[in-house]
Amino acid sequence: MSTDDGRPVLTARRLGIDSQHEAIAFVQQDCAACKSEGFSAHSRVLLKNGAAEIFATLHYVTSNLVGAEEIGLSEIAWKRLHLEGAETLTISHPAPLSSFADVRGKIFGQKLTENTARQIIDDIVHGRYSDIQLTAFVTACSARILDDDETIALTRAMVDSGSRLDWDASIIADKHCVGGLPGNRTTPIVVAIAAANGLTMPKTSSKAITSPAGTADTMSTITNVSLSLSDMKAVLTREQACFVWGGSVNFSPADDTLIRIQKALDLDSEGPLIASVLSKKIAAGATHLVIDIPVGPTAKVRSAEAAESLRQHFEAIAAHFDIKISVEITDGTQPVGRGIGPSLEARDVLAVLRNEANAPPELRDRACVLSGALLELTGAAKPAQGTQRARETLASGAANAHFEAICKAQGRLASPPVAEHQRAIIAPRPGRVARIDNRRLAKAAKLAGAPEDVAAGIDLHVYLGDAVAQGDALFTLHTQSPGELAYALDFIDANPGIVELTSP
Amino acid sequence: MSTDDGRPVLTARRLGIDSQHEAIAFVQQDCAACKSEGFSAHSRVLLKNGAAEIFATLHYVTSNLVGAEEIGLSEIAWKRLHLEGAETLTISHPAPLSSFADVRGKIFGQKLTENTARQIIDDIVHGRYSDIQLTAFVTACSARILDDDETIALTRAMVDSGSRLDWDASIIADKHCVGGLPGNRTTPIVVAIAAANGLTMPKTSSKAITSPAGTADTMSTITNVSLSLSDMKAVLTREQACFVWGGSVNFSPADDTLIRIQKALDLDSEGPLIASVLSKKIAAGATHLVIDIPVGPTAKVRSAEAAESLRQHFEAIAAHFDIKISVEITDGTQPVGRGIGPSLEARDVLAVLRNEANAPPELRDRACVLSGALLELTGAAKPAQGTQRARETLASGAANAHFEAICKAQGRLASPPVAEHQRAIIAPRPGRVARIDNRRLAKAAKLAGAPEDVAAGIDLHVYLGDAVAQGDALFTLHTQSPGELAYALDFIDANPGIVELTSP
Repeated sequence: MSTDDGRPVLTARRLGIDSQHEAIAFVQQDCAACKSEGFSAHSRVLLKNGAAEIFATLHYVTSNLVGAEEIGLSEIAWKRLHLEGAETLTISHPAPLSSFADVRGKIFGQKLTENTARQIIDDIVHGRYSDIQLTAFVTACSARILDDDETIALTRAMVDSGSRLDWDASIIADKHCVGGLPGNRTTPIVVAIAAANGLTMPKTSSKAITSPAGTADTMSTITNVSLSLSDMKAVLTREQACFVWGGSVNFSPADDTLIRIQKALDLDSEGPLIASVLSKKIAAGATHLVIDIPVGPTAKVRSAEAAESLRQHFEAIAAHFDIKISVEITDGTQPVGRGIGPSLEARDVLAVLRNEANAPPELRDRACVLSGALLELTGAAKPAQGTQRARETLASGAANAHFEAICKAQGRLASPPVAEHQRAIIAPRPGRVARIDNRRLAKAAKLAGAPEDVAAGIDLHVYLGDAVAQGDALFTLHTQSPGELAYALDFIDANPGIVELTSP
Repeated sequence: MSTDDGRPVLTARRLGIDSQHEAIAFVQQDCAACKSEGFSAHSRVLLKNGAAEIFATLHYVTSNLVGAEEIGLSEIAWKRLHLEGAETLTISHPAPLSSFADVRGKIFGQKLTENTARQIIDDIVHGRYSDIQLTAFVTACSARILDDDETIALTRAMVDSGSRLDWDASIIADKHCVGGLPGNRTTPIVVAIAAANGLTMPKTSSKAITSPAGTADTMSTITNVSLSLSDMKAVLTREQACFVWGGSVNFSPADDTLIRIQKALDLDSEGPLIASVLSKKIAAGATHLVIDIPVGPTAKVRSAEAAESLRQHFEAIAAHFDIKISVEITDGTQPVGRGIGPSLEARDVLAVLRNEANAPPELRDRACVLSGALLELTGAAKPAQGTQRARETLASGAANAHFEAICKAQGRLASPPVAEHQRAIIAPRPGRVARIDNRRLAKAAKLAGAPEDVAAGIDLHVYLGDAVAQGDALFTLHTQSPGELAYALDFIDANPGIVELTSP
């Protein structure tokens, strides 16, 4: 079968395979259409459905998984091609991916330029890179460390590849945490305090990729976070601030793709990290930015030296984009707040905003320090008075009033759901809390069901240095099903030192 | 369903998907077994079938491609697990891949050591690296250029990961071409000349990966090349030389896996190239080695400087392993010989060996230069007399006699098959041959069916500088089916400058 222009065509078949960002196409091993084009296993091919065209990686099959004139598609391929039923597709060679020559150049020591970075990011955003091509780029940016000019070029390319918020305010406040610490859900509190102090803060946040919750997951238990850019603007007009899931407004769309590879390789580098963070802030129009870098042995940044280096580079790149920045290096040795998981973190956030007696003081203090830095940076508070101002804004109820108004403007102000099943993990003997393993704690919260089950996660009852008696609850698992409770318990049994007590 | 030790089990299902070296497993998105282990999309998992265990990458499916208690497997997963029917498998977390921490170290500038290289290669050989992990390693070895110590460490690790030939001879001759030039099938001739001069030459060769033919493909049209190590030894005992497919004797088994990624990225680097070549030669027991580096604008090595650098590094690393080496930098501006494709190249080889009048003189000359270098290097000919000695060995029929004896010892001496369909591509006007595009010529030969259809390929009738009249045949396509003829013709129509004539 072939079309008028001689291109072979195949009938699309949805296989329901989640291949993440890389589109995969499956054809019979003796597929005439593919043979005629000279494709081999894992060739990159161009698939067209009318005006929609995508790059895909070809996999041959020797079974009847697809018919002789069929082409099976993974979910991302199906969606990018806007398919609905058994449409026919043409298959052909893609034009050479010229930007990959620049990736090869980078591997061999050439510098990224504004132009090459732009073309690479454009091809990534349009799904033209396979996973191994993405990996080569990600690895090259770690092995051949990006200098400031390259980081600037990459940042600008990432900004320009997506939407931008153009907002009529001389000061646009923003805040970011480089992550790695469970809980630490300061963002909603900082936004509320900033808004109550007259700042404009169009906050966009991410969902969890490998953690038990992102700010967007947490806020989704209280309000709607999937707003379009125009809905986001409407909320800003009314309340000067918002809590929006970044994925819905398309800021820096290459970022998720790159982060997925970086996480799979557990590969962090300063240049790509800074470009990732700043590109989203610039797209959101930020003029004043506070960065939280928690430092601890099981946090993302593990040494004071690494944090200091990261601070200096953040400052240099932000200065280039005319962003005023304040980098706060904070304690990352244990979780901040008690809840780990969307609902449990939301509960803590609400408790702090509502000045409840059981509100976690560490979360309140951390949020006030970061808010204070933002108030000082923007001139909303005098030097050295920001934290105190933030405390007063919280204590007066002004922050909570703004928080509730923003949520209502976003369409909903709900109470986060509570999990059906709860199980306390108790201290096997008396002692003091010597260490808390952030990574394994996060892992247990994920096994309990977070972030998909928003009510699932962990409620931590102790901090470093606390004295516990035998039988005291160290933390409580929250789950929505007995099965998940069992998975999490199995993991905790196999990892007894998640909360480690001093030797008897 | 779970086993006695509590590990979840799933019923294996063969999906017939060619996933190349990376084993892939497919499960339902809500697979309880996977949820219980905390797996997510693209998690690396450990699958066990009794004593057989493999690493695989998990893909979730939302369709009925696999049932709720099933696990679908790609071909390589199926084979590595030694499955036959619907056996049950356990699925669990693999132990942390500690060698990948060393890859990460290499990315950030640490040197490979004997120990880290060994662990990385061991994990690669055992299929424990995903494609993106392999890509990170391959990219790191290009971005952080391997020094001589690292290249030695990588070479040794690659040798030790596979079989080795232990042979009782003080001189073991070998020969390698770094490739990129169609035709250039000198190896069988060099082996025959070496054997006729009393040298021991246990030659192993590769099949084509992205080219129209490898030496193993070419020799398979004349004799059996898939010999076990013990069969190979039996041939050597009788004839002192052989032509064996390297894949059947398991020398340096990591090499194919790495080459596949390097080819997909079009990424060549000296260190990995040298380790790839020398590891196979050391495994074969080589003591004296001639390397052919063709240089030309469409060959693999494109400049005299690059060739010279490669020569020096080959010499340094070979010296470390006590291998006497002679590096020949040769003309790579056009194919050597007339045939491109297994049978057509075999035809040229036989014509040279048999002193036929129509034997391609370029192939004979190139083979004699390389044989001569090997004869001189081993002391079988005096300095500056090797090429002449090689010519005499050919002319006397001694080389052919040894060639035929080796083929018979390998079980068969056949005539290469001739293609059913032939079509000449003619000069559109008179002129002289100004340029030949090696890469597109190879591509056309592959579209014609090479190397799978051994008789398919291209017969080149002209060389650079030849005068042609309008209507003269420039080359002839050989194919086994009208369909493949059409594919190749389409490509040639779309690429008119494969053989480029001087301007009229």
